[in-house]
Amino acid sequence: MTRAPTTRTPRARTLAVSPQTAEGRVIIEAVVPQIDCGETPIKRIVGDTLEVEADVFTDGHEKIAVDVLYRPERETEWRRARMQFLENDRWAGSFTLDENARHLYTVEAWRDPFASWQAGVQKKRDAGQNLTLELENGLDLVRQAKPPRTAARAKDAIIAEAESSEAERATLLLAPRVLDFMSAHGRRDNVSRYGRELVVIADRKAAAFSSWYELFPRSQTENPRQHGTFAGVITQLPYVRDLGFDVLYFPPIHPIGKKNRKGRNNALSASPADPGSVYAIGSDEGGHDALHPALGTMDDFLRLIESARAHDLEIALDFAIQCSPDHPWIKEHPEWFEWRKDGSIAYAENPPKKYEDIVNVQFYGESFPSLWLALRDVVLFWIGKGVRIFRVDNPHTKPIPFWRWLIEEVNRKHPDVFFLAEAFTRPPMMRKLAKIGFQQSYTYFTWRDEKWDITEYINELMGEMAEYYRPNFFVNTPDINPLYLQTSGRPGFIVRSTLAAMLAGNWGIYSGFEICESEPLPGREEYLDSEKYEIRVRDFNAPGNIKDHIRALNRIRQENPALHDV
Amino acid sequence: MTRAPTTRTPRARTLAVSPQTAEGRVIIEAVVPQIDCGETPIKRIVGDTLEVEADVFTDGHEKIAVDVLYRPERETEWRRARMQFLENDRWAGSFTLDENARHLYTVEAWRDPFASWQAGVQKKRDAGQNLTLELENGLDLVRQAKPPRTAARAKDAIIAEAESSEAERATLLLAPRVLDFMSAHGRRDNVSRYGRELVVIADRKAAAFSSWYELFPRSQTENPRQHGTFAGVITQLPYVRDLGFDVLYFPPIHPIGKKNRKGRNNALSASPADPGSVYAIGSDEGGHDALHPALGTMDDFLRLIESARAHDLEIALDFAIQCSPDHPWIKEHPEWFEWRKDGSIAYAENPPKKYEDIVNVQFYGESFPSLWLALRDVVLFWIGKGVRIFRVDNPHTKPIPFWRWLIEEVNRKHPDVFFLAEAFTRPPMMRKLAKIGFQQSYTYFTWRDEKWDITEYINELMGEMAEYYRPNFFVNTPDINPLYLQTSGRPGFIVRSTLAAMLAGNWGIYSGFEICESEPLPGREEYLDSEKYEIRVRDFNAPGNIKDHIRALNRIRQENPALHDV
Repeated sequence: MTRAPTTRTPRARTLAVSPQTAEGRVIIEAVVPQIDCGETPIKRIVGDTLEVEADVFTDGHEKIAVDVLYRPERETEWRRARMQFLENDRWAGSFTLDENARHLYTVEAWRDPFASWQAGVQKKRDAGQNLTLELENGLDLVRQAKPPRTAARAKDAIIAEAESSEAERATLLLAPRVLDFMSAHGRRDNVSRYGRELVVIADRKAAAFSSWYELFPRSQTENPRQHGTFAGVITQLPYVRDLGFDVLYFPPIHPIGKKNRKGRNNALSASPADPGSVYAIGSDEGGHDALHPALGTMDDFLRLIESARAHDLEIALDFAIQCSPDHPWIKEHPEWFEWRKDGSIAYAENPPKKYEDIVNVQFYGESFPSLWLALRDVVLFWIGKGVRIFRVDNPHTKPIPFWRWLIEEVNRKHPDVFFLAEAFTRPPMMRKLAKIGFQQSYTYFTWRDEKWDITEYINELMGEMAEYYRPNFFVNTPDINPLYLQTSGRPGFIVRSTLAAMLAGNWGIYSGFEICESEPLPGREEYLDSEKYEIRVRDFNAPGNIKDHIRALNRIRQENPALHDV
Repeated sequence: MTRAPTTRTPRARTLAVSPQTAEGRVIIEAVVPQIDCGETPIKRIVGDTLEVEADVFTDGHEKIAVDVLYRPERETEWRRARMQFLENDRWAGSFTLDENARHLYTVEAWRDPFASWQAGVQKKRDAGQNLTLELENGLDLVRQAKPPRTAARAKDAIIAEAESSEAERATLLLAPRVLDFMSAHGRRDNVSRYGRELVVIADRKAAAFSSWYELFPRSQTENPRQHGTFAGVITQLPYVRDLGFDVLYFPPIHPIGKKNRKGRNNALSASPADPGSVYAIGSDEGGHDALHPALGTMDDFLRLIESARAHDLEIALDFAIQCSPDHPWIKEHPEWFEWRKDGSIAYAENPPKKYEDIVNVQFYGESFPSLWLALRDVVLFWIGKGVRIFRVDNPHTKPIPFWRWLIEEVNRKHPDVFFLAEAFTRPPMMRKLAKIGFQQSYTYFTWRDEKWDITEYINELMGEMAEYYRPNFFVNTPDINPLYLQTSGRPGFIVRSTLAAMLAGNWGIYSGFEICESEPLPGREEYLDSEKYEIRVRDFNAPGNIKDHIRALNRIRQENPALHDV
């Protein structure tokens, strides 16, 4: 093929249409749902029906037809559903998400010469005009139809009938059944495809509807001087299940660093008896794929997973990337860390604050891609042990491209795994984490106290954000002892749990909430004697507890489908 | 280069980042102005400053810097302007459109290690911490700077000064002037580019601010039985200019078909004296590149163009694609037209209505690309004669890909040419025509009579549409004799002209408006004895005329820059 001189041929760059397909003559615009020009997948649940709308139109008065195209990402053939005209060039169609997987969808449209022909000829017939030539044209269109073998006889029958009687030809060719046949098998002109393939992720239901209970396994003991165990957690499962929760989430359960270990209430130095912060991960006993020896063995952990499953509870683990200065990776992979000019490792800091019990990894330079793969393998390791839910600590301080890759990488093989983003930062980053993959997200809920404030926030979450951001309304966490609860007393705990459980598809409490614990570190939004740094034993039958209320909330959630989909 | 096994290397498809550039770590989102994900260029005027905003952020606490990148499309090197932080991750910058051309713009951002270093070290200094190692790091960053030769000495000076005095090193390296130097020439980490290059078209000012007067050249005669001429139009130029208009627009001035010629008031048959509809273009006297012989020669036309220019008036021509059954193209290019089974040509129709004095071209099949090129050449032909403005008849009945290509093709060589879309149809098509290139558009203004109605419509035009849709508020046209004016009398003409001239950057009247002509074809929104089908001679000094008011409106528009930019 020779290239014609540019002066004689419209340039492809500006034309964006080929003479063969004449694509682009039918305009397809404003396809929804769609976030960020299709860069952000939207989220749904397996079994949901996705409603798709688009503006579709063409020049002149020609009739058009519109299909929504869709498929699981790993398939190559599009499935189709015909869209229906609404008004003002707006069309709507839908399809069902049958599978826990990423799906693609887009819109295709074409000019329908037979439908146009019928509409024009019907008007001419009503006006008493001569139709002889027109009917020949209509019959030609039928002859051009290309039905599959199963419908070939229907085509032949229409043609035979039309040829046999000129008198009845108009009535036949204008019949709805011929329109139906031609709509499926007739010629399609100027077939045009929407410019983007959009993505919808169909998660399993728990990604959108779950009730979380958070506890520290090391506190599952009757004696605060004795370290709790996974066996102790097993004894607590009936309690958690009885309250109606379905996800049981543990802060890190790995070996804890000894160097610069924190003492009670975040003290800079620990006494020999202090267990240290669970977030200072790693010691000579192992790193992110090891268990704290005092909690038990891997067999004990597997038994716990099994037992939880028997109680209809899922275990969620914490994925916190920082390392203690004793973490095995520091010797095995010094290139993953930042070193100072004097040869010492750079501790985590937020100047002038220093966090000397942890060091941060570097994600680029020599860490790429070996660190990324190691972190993925940590997640895969725990997936191999039966874990399907991860709460991710401080994702906003790690690179967005890393999370996007990690979550896609994990979900490709394990679409039932999901991640909860514990990011508390400015709105664009919180939204971005959800956009690039996190299936659930912490929110500003704990700081929304007033009616106007809550209303405004819920409206924000229920707007465009609802397409990709699934809030998990925790009423408290080991890091957040909300000011409201510090002064509200028991009624405040009733209020906040009711709001959380009724407003969001996902909600959660951190152990102690049900007995209205709220004693703060003075002047701070943190707990006194925080469980992050010590073992805490509680009396869950303390007077004034709100266990009955929480049980009722979770029962109401289960019984009312209207509460399942936000 | 060998390909590493996929299990060892994050896949490029999902990673979207290379280890070298680490692009994507700085997130750039929500760049405005932007329409349809950048598919639709925004429109501005030469000399305008384009204000650009974006959400830009990264993980952690690192400082970032942001540039807006821009260039005329034909250049290859980006120019840059630094963007400033607003709040909540929002950044703003701007650049000036110096040239009547298409420009591209996008956003680039990076992590700024020196700025981050300064911020951290300043806090540590304020807290009285030891800075020795930190200052070494800072000095290393200065050493890594890569200034152009002109700034090499400044770098050497900073290093020499820092090395000479350890005592003063902190004061020096924390100084704003060092930050400025490093901001321009220091290392940039994780340089990230926004994913789209956006387009802004800088048109000449008349595209956004113009006052139109429409007349039929054939009516520029004192005797209605005598055909007007271009020479007659020249005598009218002072009149039009005196009213304050700057664009003088003619309906088609080409030879008119004789076969099936329409008579007065759109009668199906014409008497021998009837001149026919100006929109039935083409006869044995020529087609779209010919002049109606009775109007004059091409020299007469060129004299008119010249004379108009001397009066500060621009001539706008009509570009109407349909052909009379006598058009030369029908014999030269039968493949451009639709033929019926009996060998006759298919007239234009909108069943059951037939328009037997015109036939429509086909844009695809054998017409592609020869017809497209011929139509482009018609436009280029008149551009060659000095015409720079085209009013396009019924663009919504021709393919969108054709207009997109035609306008880009013409504007690439002639950026000062612009097109006014005469589309009256549903909103998505009217908007689309503006999106794909039309620099001005007719509107629903003539049908917006009530205060609420006008307010609502203006708000719509001033919203997102203002980025690409330039309304031209015609108060009447040869096709539209508004119902309001049919009954309002003179006050209504004052009202409507005031609204049009004050609300829109572009406005226009069709001859006769200034003497309050409004006699309708009974029950219709059309003029009785329409000038489309006959020669009309008017007395512009008729009592009750509103010429003084129109003159005042156009003077007020000229004198008040606030009226120039909508």
